[in-house]
Amino acid sequence: MTKVDYQRITSMVQQAFDQAGIILTDEERNNIEVADFGLDDIDNIGLQLVTYVNTERVCAKELVLLPHQTCPEHKHVETNGCQGKEETFRCRAGEVYLYVPGKQDKQLQAMLPDTDLTVFHEVILKPGEQYTLLPDTLHWFQAGPSGAIVSEFSTRSTDETDIFTDIRIVRTPVIE
Amino acid sequence: MTKVDYQRITSMVQQAFDQAGIILTDEERNNIEVADFGLDDIDNIGLQLVTYVNTERVCAKELVLLPHQTCPEHKHVETNGCQGKEETFRCRAGEVYLYVPGKQDKQLQAMLPDTDLTVFHEVILKPGEQYTLLPDTLHWFQAGPSGAIVSEFSTRSTDETDIFTDIRIVRTPVIE
Repeated sequence: MTKVDYQRITSMVQQAFDQAGIILTDEERNNIEVADFGLDDIDNIGLQLVTYVNTERVCAKELVLLPHQTCPEHKHVETNGCQGKEETFRCRAGEVYLYVPGKQDKQLQAMLPDTDLTVFHEVILKPGEQYTLLPDTLHWFQAGPSGAIVSEFSTRSTDETDIFTDIRIVRTPVIE
Repeated sequence: MTKVDYQRITSMVQQAFDQAGIILTDEERNNIEVADFGLDDIDNIGLQLVTYVNTERVCAKELVLLPHQTCPEHKHVETNGCQGKEETFRCRAGEVYLYVPGKQDKQLQAMLPDTDLTVFHEVILKPGEQYTLLPDTLHWFQAGPSGAIVSEFSTRSTDETDIFTDIRIVRTPVIE
């Protein structure tokens, strides 16, 4: 990702937080994480994050998605002898289409992104709605047309050990 | 607590959520927990809660305090062989005066409530600011003049085993 892209994206994310009335410290506001997963297609496949806390036992983050942006399919696996991450997504603003293992029972709300996907059971989350994912559960999600903000409540986050379905993916962002 | 008090308090809490732009489901909105700790003085000593999730590993809540209302001093201890609760308080709206063990280094912002207190090291939390409490740490907190909303990110919550300094306290609410 170029520095220009990074600044363009973080400026949109700051606006989204302001609109939703979610207050960040200056330090958080100036250090928003932008994950392009090494695919160099940030407007379509990517995720923006602010991590409030991540201890040995508890993690809490805000996730921000641009309109129709997709967080690609992955799962959280056992790490250093500890059970994989359990996480609850709670939609705060916008709309999220979340996909998990199970029957695909209707046409997908999401626009199919250019990345490998294998699970298609759809869960739609509107503001105030939430869904809990147990460890080792494949999932991917996409924002609706106005983007989305999602609070994530979880056990310790170890993003670096996440397993992605698309083998091209590199989780740790590189800003050129 | 009387039913009239319960309805008066929950109506104020719903307004506070609306003002802060925090969206709840109808079920959450209609089931706000009001804890008066058995002291029958809800406007001064009490706490309002919405629990989003509470699994074996993770818990997330919104805590709402009325203006100058105090959550009385307590600690989270080992329960059923599991380490006590670790919790991070993140102030979302209003102002919170949090008290933990340590030196009292200035005059307290809080108005002293009518309940037993032993820790007086003050931490002031404004919107966007947060503080992490390890298990077995005595703490109490009070909202500033306009009340407060605090997000709590924690390990499993087992309120029923909390140890309160004021031996009169009964944690589980009784509505007459």
